Amino acid sequence: MKKEFAQWYQDVIFDAELVDSSPVRGCFIIRPYGYAIWQKIQKILDQEISKLGAQNAYFPLLIPQSFFKKEAEHIEGFSPELAVVTHAGGKKLEEPLIIRPTSETIIFDAFSRWIKSWRDLPYKINQWANVVRWEMRSRAFLRTTEFLWQEGHTAHKTKDEAKKMAQAAIKMYKNFLEEVAAIPTISGLKTENEKFAGAEATYTIEGYMQDGKALQLCTSHVLSKGFVSSFDIKFQDENGEMVTPTCTSWGITTRVIGALIMVHGDEKGLILPPKLAPIQLVIVPIFKKGNKDKILSAAETLKNKFEKLGYSVVVDKDEQKTPGTKFYHWEVRGVPLRVELGERDIEKGGFVVVSRLEKEKRFLEIGMEEEVAKILSDIQAKLFKQAYNRLASDWHSSDFIERFGPLIVKNNGFYEVGWCGNEKCELELKKYHATIRCILDNKDGANNKLCMTCKKQAKYVVLVAKAY
Amino acid sequence: MKKEFAQWYQDVIFDAELVDSSPVRGCFIIRPYGYAIWQKIQKILDQEISKLGAQNAYFPLLIPQSFFKKEAEHIEGFSPELAVVTHAGGKKLEEPLIIRPTSETIIFDAFSRWIKSWRDLPYKINQWANVVRWEMRSRAFLRTTEFLWQEGHTAHKTKDEAKKMAQAAIKMYKNFLEEVAAIPTISGLKTENEKFAGAEATYTIEGYMQDGKALQLCTSHVLSKGFVSSFDIKFQDENGEMVTPTCTSWGITTRVIGALIMVHGDEKGLILPPKLAPIQLVIVPIFKKGNKDKILSAAETLKNKFEKLGYSVVVDKDEQKTPGTKFYHWEVRGVPLRVELGERDIEKGGFVVVSRLEKEKRFLEIGMEEEVAKILSDIQAKLFKQAYNRLASDWHSSDFIERFGPLIVKNNGFYEVGWCGNEKCELELKKYHATIRCILDNKDGANNKLCMTCKKQAKYVVLVAKAY
Repeated sequence: MKKEFAQWYQDVIFDAELVDSSPVRGCFIIRPYGYAIWQKIQKILDQEISKLGAQNAYFPLLIPQSFFKKEAEHIEGFSPELAVVTHAGGKKLEEPLIIRPTSETIIFDAFSRWIKSWRDLPYKINQWANVVRWEMRSRAFLRTTEFLWQEGHTAHKTKDEAKKMAQAAIKMYKNFLEEVAAIPTISGLKTENEKFAGAEATYTIEGYMQDGKALQLCTSHVLSKGFVSSFDIKFQDENGEMVTPTCTSWGITTRVIGALIMVHGDEKGLILPPKLAPIQLVIVPIFKKGNKDKILSAAETLKNKFEKLGYSVVVDKDEQKTPGTKFYHWEVRGVPLRVELGERDIEKGGFVVVSRLEKEKRFLEIGMEEEVAKILSDIQAKLFKQAYNRLASDWHSSDFIERFGPLIVKNNGFYEVGWCGNEKCELELKKYHATIRCILDNKDGANNKLCMTCKKQAKYVVLVAKAY
Repeated sequence: MKKEFAQWYQDVIFDAELVDSSPVRGCFIIRPYGYAIWQKIQKILDQEISKLGAQNAYFPLLIPQSFFKKEAEHIEGFSPELAVVTHAGGKKLEEPLIIRPTSETIIFDAFSRWIKSWRDLPYKINQWANVVRWEMRSRAFLRTTEFLWQEGHTAHKTKDEAKKMAQAAIKMYKNFLEEVAAIPTISGLKTENEKFAGAEATYTIEGYMQDGKALQLCTSHVLSKGFVSSFDIKFQDENGEMVTPTCTSWGITTRVIGALIMVHGDEKGLILPPKLAPIQLVIVPIFKKGNKDKILSAAETLKNKFEKLGYSVVVDKDEQKTPGTKFYHWEVRGVPLRVELGERDIEKGGFVVVSRLEKEKRFLEIGMEEEVAKILSDIQAKLFKQAYNRLASDWHSSDFIERFGPLIVKNNGFYEVGWCGNEKCELELKKYHATIRCILDNKDGANNKLCMTCKKQAKYVVLVAKAY
């Protein structure tokens, strides 16, 4: 796993039946077990997004090509990734249509009709949708031609209010990632060079994978006035003047599933945090000759008890497989807790539990089902702590690129260094296959640092790493 | 409304802010209020689909063109409706990609990898997705280039089992439509001419709109062996032989929202059945000078009580609008129950309720909040009954096309007539802008009928109507 991380990742997602490859380049099938994880993510985030005041809506998949040309930066950023519909209904189209790579353009076109007065603001929309960005080198969940996501789009009276909105979205994602997905995160601003095509500022959340690389987990943008103006969105303010609002957009994708795998997985396969596991407990009945009905009936009774406590439970009844084969089957799939139930356990008045994180078996008596809540919350906490410790121990404070560059090439890891703000100095990192992942919120720290490249006074403290 | 039904429909969906038009031909924006209805539909149906044993998954939006050519009937049926991606990533594609109009082809390609043995069967997948079918004449919800739907796809050992599955899907839809959407339905088989391109049999559910036209609400297909074979799906049966399974597919779309409007709406706008209304109760505070805080606080208390009882409630606090304007606003949107709350009501220790179906106001005392459950369930029942009575009174048993044809042209309505099974006789209906909506399950009835067109002995009793 450590040596061949990419291969391990590939094996795990296929063995756990999260995905299958498809006949379409760069696109994957999300199989039921993988999709069930996404549905859990959706359910939790949808509530949080609603708390931010955004309402779900649905906009067309296809966007006129001319919409992308309204703003130079946006088209420049996206044009290499666009999929273009040129023919439909048996005819060549007068104007080609683009499959949405993101929906700012078509949503802002609607905003220009819906937003008239300061009373209409803030205006907050969210969309759960599929998007297409053509990828040359794809990797399931991490980088795929089509992916699923949520995209929030808002308009505000002032830039200050928009900035607060963009930050509130980041805070929501961070809470979700840390509390639910058990993934410790680093957040900050993207550099000019790395920000969204059309944004004035892009906030990002970066995660730390077990191979020492960064994975961008989500972003939130304060869009530039120029971008918003090109869609002619204007509102009448309290003084009767026509003003351009400041807009934001923010999104998180099926990539989070890839992060779950790369942050928590082990040699045996997936490990899913209990709060996102589609199956939290699997009951494996241990059959002996002639006791099948007895054991299955006890297993069903136990399942019902767990379900009443709110858990999702599966009884693996398959008679063709040995218990060992079943253990392996559910370990690969990362089910947090296994329950073993044999004749002796029933006689002793209880059942055996085995955490996905440990080898020790533990006997619980009937009536102690609620103990399972504690074990699951321990697993959740331990997953976060494990990941946090890895991030902390691989976090290095360094000075100059010639010193830490070769270390990144060799060992990956996160490097906290100084930067003068000059793009030329940033792009030197290319030689080491690294990028600035984000500008850390540490202005004072910058005073004590020199730029990693030019060695002049640093303006920013930045996080440098290789990234997916 | 009766005279200009199409215009009424158009006005209502825009006034109620269910949709907005979009810059893309045939595509509409589903605005938050419209999308909230769809989310309610999804939530209820998703549970029912899961009870049928189907698991949610997600398959690529783009399908290689060659997949559609594997089976002659399928490509012939769909080719005029396809949207084609010819360029992506800045290059011309070697093989054009089709935006899915339906996903049988790409799902069956996966089935051919996933299904090996009789032990794998039945195999049941469901997908919630967007699909694109190019439309020349579009109408929001009813006929749009892009629409949202659910598509179930299953594989079975025997044709008999597949037929039962296709029927079980129809039963699920029928229950949903009648019990939840309050729409009475007629179900039956499609004729050869009207069935799905690739199906051996297509079951349909037809609804009766207030203008006397039929609307196909959903379909369920038993697919032809030829179609399944062309994707090379085979399993090893109990005897070790390689056998082609029988497959089904079944779907329901955002069109149901159009049906809700056309079945229940009235001169004032939408009327939503309480079980699908995103807002079930609206509280309109009746302000007088100086009592705003008092009234609002009582309104919030009442809202909390209703929410505890499980209702979705909005308090319309807007101080710029008169109560009358608010009544109009929520009537157009079809909120089933309005609560009026003024100083006198509070003094009398209660509140006023007004059903969307009636004009009478009714005073309820605090403590009688649960009475609201009865009122809402009465509204639900009354909507179904109203619609059922309309269908029953516009249901005509007739004989020959020259007799009922002109009546359909003039008055619309449903006609139950005999048919010999000959396509030529069926297509005579074109002259009257009508079609066979379905073959009714009434074999005995056919004995007593002659074919509407050729006047020979009828084989089937069919339902004839104009349709959307």
